[in-house]
Amino acid sequence: MAGNGFGVAFRFTTFGESHGIALGCVVDGVPPGLELVEADIQRWLDRRRPGQSKFVTQRQEPDSVEILSGTFEGRTTGTSIGLLIRNQDQRSKDYSEIKDVYRPGHADFTYDAKYGLRDYRGGGRASARETAMRVAAGAVARKVLGEGIRIRGALVEMGGDAVDRAAWDWDEVERNPFWCPDPQAAERWEGLLGAVRKAGSSVGAIVEVVAEGVPAGLGDPVYDKLDADLAKAMMSINAVKGVEIGDGFAASRLSGEANADEMRMAKGKPTFLANHAGGILGGLSTGAPIVVRFAIKPTSSILTPRRSIDRFGHEVEVRTKGRHDPCVGIRAVPVGEAMLAVVLADHLLRDRALGPKPRAGGPDW
Amino acid sequence: MAGNGFGVAFRFTTFGESHGIALGCVVDGVPPGLELVEADIQRWLDRRRPGQSKFVTQRQEPDSVEILSGTFEGRTTGTSIGLLIRNQDQRSKDYSEIKDVYRPGHADFTYDAKYGLRDYRGGGRASARETAMRVAAGAVARKVLGEGIRIRGALVEMGGDAVDRAAWDWDEVERNPFWCPDPQAAERWEGLLGAVRKAGSSVGAIVEVVAEGVPAGLGDPVYDKLDADLAKAMMSINAVKGVEIGDGFAASRLSGEANADEMRMAKGKPTFLANHAGGILGGLSTGAPIVVRFAIKPTSSILTPRRSIDRFGHEVEVRTKGRHDPCVGIRAVPVGEAMLAVVLADHLLRDRALGPKPRAGGPDW
Amino acid sequence: MAGNGFGVAFRFTTFGESHGIALGCVVDGVPPGLELVEADIQRWLDRRRPGQSKFVTQRQEPDSVEILSGTFEGRTTGTSIGLLIRNQDQRSKDYSEIKDVYRPGHADFTYDAKYGLRDYRGGGRASARETAMRVAAGAVARKVLGEGIRIRGALVEMGGDAVDRAAWDWDEVERNPFWCPDPQAAERWEGLLGAVRKAGSSVGAIVEVVAEGVPAGLGDPVYDKLDADLAKAMMSINAVKGVEIGDGFAASRLSGEANADEMRMAKGKPTFLANHAGGILGGLSTGAPIVVRFAIKPTSSILTPRRSIDRFGHEVEVRTKGRHDPCVGIRAVPVGEAMLAVVLADHLLRDRALGPKPRAGGPDW
Amino acid sequence: MAGNGFGVAFRFTTFGESHGIALGCVVDGVPPGLELVEADIQRWLDRRRPGQSKFVTQRQEPDSVEILSGTFEGRTTGTSIGLLIRNQDQRSKDYSEIKDVYRPGHADFTYDAKYGLRDYRGGGRASARETAMRVAAGAVARKVLGEGIRIRGALVEMGGDAVDRAAWDWDEVERNPFWCPDPQAAERWEGLLGAVRKAGSSVGAIVEVVAEGVPAGLGDPVYDKLDADLAKAMMSINAVKGVEIGDGFAASRLSGEANADEMRMAKGKPTFLANHAGGILGGLSTGAPIVVRFAIKPTSSILTPRRSIDRFGHEVEVRTKGRHDPCVGIRAVPVGEAMLAVVLADHLLRDRALGPKPRAGGPDW
Repeated sequence: MAGNGFGVAFRFTTFGESHGIALGCVVDGVPPGLELVEADIQRWLDRRRPGQSKFVTQRQEPDSVEILSGTFEGRTTGTSIGLLIRNQDQRSKDYSEIKDVYRPGHADFTYDAKYGLRDYRGGGRASARETAMRVAAGAVARKVLGEGIRIRGALVEMGGDAVDRAAWDWDEVERNPFWCPDPQAAERWEGLLGAVRKAGSSVGAIVEVVAEGVPAGLGDPVYDKLDADLAKAMMSINAVKGVEIGDGFAASRLSGEANADEMRMAKGKPTFLANHAGGILGGLSTGAPIVVRFAIKPTSSILTPRRSIDRFGHEVEVRTKGRHDPCVGIRAVPVGEAMLAVVLADHLLRDRALGPKPRAGGPDW
Repeated sequence: MAGNGFGVAFRFTTFGESHGIALGCVVDGVPPGLELVEADIQRWLDRRRPGQSKFVTQRQEPDSVEILSGTFEGRTTGTSIGLLIRNQDQRSKDYSEIKDVYRPGHADFTYDAKYGLRDYRGGGRASARETAMRVAAGAVARKVLGEGIRIRGALVEMGGDAVDRAAWDWDEVERNPFWCPDPQAAERWEGLLGAVRKAGSSVGAIVEVVAEGVPAGLGDPVYDKLDADLAKAMMSINAVKGVEIGDGFAASRLSGEANADEMRMAKGKPTFLANHAGGILGGLSTGAPIVVRFAIKPTSSILTPRRSIDRFGHEVEVRTKGRHDPCVGIRAVPVGEAMLAVVLADHLLRDRALGPKPRAGGPDW
Repeated sequence: MAGNGFGVAFRFTTFGESHGIALGCVVDGVPPGLELVEADIQRWLDRRRPGQSKFVTQRQEPDSVEILSGTFEGRTTGTSIGLLIRNQDQRSKDYSEIKDVYRPGHADFTYDAKYGLRDYRGGGRASARETAMRVAAGAVARKVLGEGIRIRGALVEMGGDAVDRAAWDWDEVERNPFWCPDPQAAERWEGLLGAVRKAGSSVGAIVEVVAEGVPAGLGDPVYDKLDADLAKAMMSINAVKGVEIGDGFAASRLSGEANADEMRMAKGKPTFLANHAGGILGGLSTGAPIVVRFAIKPTSSILTPRRSIDRFGHEVEVRTKGRHDPCVGIRAVPVGEAMLAVVLADHLLRDRALGPKPRAGGPDW
Repeated sequence: MAGNGFGVAFRFTTFGESHGIALGCVVDGVPPGLELVEADIQRWLDRRRPGQSKFVTQRQEPDSVEILSGTFEGRTTGTSIGLLIRNQDQRSKDYSEIKDVYRPGHADFTYDAKYGLRDYRGGGRASARETAMRVAAGAVARKVLGEGIRIRGALVEMGGDAVDRAAWDWDEVERNPFWCPDPQAAERWEGLLGAVRKAGSSVGAIVEVVAEGVPAGLGDPVYDKLDADLAKAMMSINAVKGVEIGDGFAASRLSGEANADEMRMAKGKPTFLANHAGGILGGLSTGAPIVVRFAIKPTSSILTPRRSIDRFGHEVEVRTKGRHDPCVGIRAVPVGEAMLAVVLADHLLRDRALGPKPRAGGPDW
């Protein structure tokens, strides 16, 4: 059943396989009059692009995006926006080795169980190449959110080695190939990942994405809670196995006194004295920064032979060669930012449907 | 915008406030011919019901469910099923104390920010009382899944004190008031929670829910991944701050070799030699048990005075009296089971839409 | 698959069978702060209520609606609104006669073909009794639309006898039992329907519903066109076989010159000199009155024996006794008004999601 | 808000403007293993293609479709199918004449009212050029339906001149430029339309589309009735102002006796002795042919000057030059067929979600 779209008011629907002709996307529900040209999207795609350091896949893809519709004279028209990226480096290599084999940790077995056939070239639709279109949609979402909402992400742990939060520097994130906010951790990771890559192994990672400037009251109070939609958004990214908001799992180890963020007025505005909640209470934004973390498993494509079976039920050994990321978590940073942006854009538009604020004669602090 | 429904093919939509007249639910998309009488639902509601031990709220609610439609002569007809629970113990107490005050950690502030007004009696729609209808819908979902799929849950950590997984005993879960699978942990928690309750404080918890017997191939491969929908389902439960599948965050600390579950044939069937993946790869079920954990923050209703503001912008101190759960995680166990059931039922029906298996001449191991 | 709900931003989901315990509805997406008490809904339900004249079914149902949630101190809170009507007059008669028989023109055969079983008492879910909840949801939708949008309906043809449009008088609609705007037609119909009723036969009808005061620009330009959603809404009413907007089928017999409504400025506002379009161009409202007509087939429950089969494949003769409307079109008038209201409320909220008008620096005539 | 997609289980989402770079579509929910190559789609696009006779627009567009994803080795994989048509003949003409003017009968005014700006080149997104992608999606839908379901359409009335149903010949439909099933009507229309074209005027038309071989029981019984979805589908086509099922409006002029189709067993199967219902009862298919008609208004682009206003509120006269269809109804025939196909494909998959038939121990005639 249809499952290649995301969002309700701001909705994008994607297509494309790793080694197919192209990746594409329809972004629907974008308000009219927003400035949007290809460079606005390309800028974010370039951050996710493969081949930018020795720590990511060496596949060469310029990922040049084309806007096919939905804008006129550089502004959105309110109609659906078609986006297209032609694949360039889908190597015509021989895939006969993995054609019938289920690589451990990959979706090969489950696709066959579901569909009975699959495009096995480079993982087909299951490849993280699909995330390029998430980033493109996220770029459009940022336009919807406007300048007042700032979305940033960082890698906060790699292979179990966490950053020092006291040393957090957002500017540092742009200076190393890991989106790492802590220069010392970045240095350690360079050694770590070099060794992992040489060994043909892989490591996992934890990504943190943050949105600042989000007004209070976005979200919906029961099933479409803002955090529920964020959890879905992040868990839908390839290789993600866990999501948390604010203190997340650590919150379950706090006392009620320590966890509940106190409030005071500051500059005439309601203000939280802490942000254990990660900017969300009761499924609605509080106005404090929205903080989301997600865990990425180690890349399943590794050189060490692993036991598996093939589609005929034979037992086999599998080694995965090819161009892979030793830590897919790195390139997940811009993807996580994009998914945060699309969820916020969707809820911003959904909230507007209720009419202008303050509502129902409510408080206008 | 509409956000009180969950699911696509199997969909339920709920209403009701903590201290309103009733809670209700429409369950839509249920196949015809399934045996369903009130006792089939009541059985699960009774597990979530308040007032069953001194460790949960003392509010007295029989939570008697009435099936208003959608069945005929004890079987589902394929039409929508209306369910109703009348509230009994909505004490006519004086709420003037919290009427204008934002209790820290609660949704009081965010509801006001969004709507400008709220039903403040007992938390209104934000109260965990809403979860009764999740459990009711989950009971119907279990009927859709049939006897072959078994869903169980347990509390695996309370206030930072985890169970010993080597001592796991599913039978023990039914023997203590905590749904704890480890008798020694249950004993420790009794002491811990007794002290917390007396102090008017609260603790958090971690719940684990497991589904066995799920066929391989349920889910959708991109945005409606099975794990993505599970993450949304669990995060939408009150007070949940984190969700993980299989090894979850711990997977990010494993090597690719350790994490990727190997396969062999066993009794003529594809079999996984481990289950780090928690039964899901590429968003599709593998046939191994589906394992989901979620973290619950400590109850925000505590006796210790906390700093806050009121809706007029005055700074205040807040103490929350009333009947509360010192650890809401306990009653979240049946709720988590229910949400696991509804997601699986939805994806079972969605998968059926593709036609009978094996598909496309695929492998029939 | 789930199909008992209607709408996107303003969405209602219903349940209930003709001779079941109750009818119910969840109205979701209603903005906060609107005044809403039971009388606001009852008022419209009373117009659809059975037993009000000898020309409609004699079933005695007060159709007393209960608001179970979603309001507080007489105003909507933004959360889901639960509505309930208990059935009173579900006669415990013997249904064994029609239990296994497919009444011609009814949904008996198709329900059995789809589900394999059905609640045959009074038509079960297929009964027009379901429309009570449409009217209830429509009452809430009118609150969303506000006083500025006026929705009215009338019966414009019965049994092939049309009203004289030159004699149209909206006040007359409230004065006769047919919602007929032409007093002379009302008189003719009284004779016609009296004869039909005595003969145990039935006739069809055409209903026209009109919305005035709808701002220009509601709707969506491609698949969710305002007229497309109206067509779905009206065709989903029991016994409806045709829908048209503005001149409808007659428009196909006009020349391009005659059909395209010309424009001029009037009192500083864009104004249409005619309304062949029925207030909708390109799927968007023009600001002119929205005019929708729908055709209702003659009631299928008639006394004359008809040839049919039973569920065992035997050929039988069927006569339908019981309390029926000789012209179901009469009671379809308030239902059509309600469906017009819910579609407009949905699109009003959807349009708001794009932000305040005028948009993108557009014309502010 | 997002409105460029159609369908639930089988869902397609489109983009593209008349004079933009390209038209595109994502078809989502297609079961795996269906044979699908570009020629399967091109075949139907060629029937809708402009420039094929002097009676349709002379714009030269090969409408060559490219499948960008979702198939592998000539078969569908179950993942989303990306389709693309590059525009070729988007004349770089001067649009300054209509840039600020609202052409009567067009969506110019309403787009400006909604969005505040529009792509005015050739009607932008409001152009019937968008329907190319409906035809492409319909071609995929036909694959889902399989050979057993036959969908055909014809023009049954042009400019008020109806075909003689006694002379109906499906083979004739392919022999004239009007998709007319009656050779004598086709001859008359040739004269009629020639005159209309020379006069720079336009006429309307009525299209009938028929599906044979549809199994009984497709559809949903309340809001997503099969006929409700068909009404929406047809009304969403450009210039459509009315839709009817079976006898449609004429059914409202029949007696209950004449209208209710009687049943008998024939060759061991339930059989209807007439088909006034057009193959749908209670929102579910009966197994008889599904018959849908829709009315198309005369093309609004005409040479005769008409009164209108411009976006600055000035009163103007408008004549529409350019390449237009004097009767857009002709090219609506393949579009109507396509929309019938997509609705049926959606409901076929939705019905499958309930499990294999016969259900609930139901009749297996």
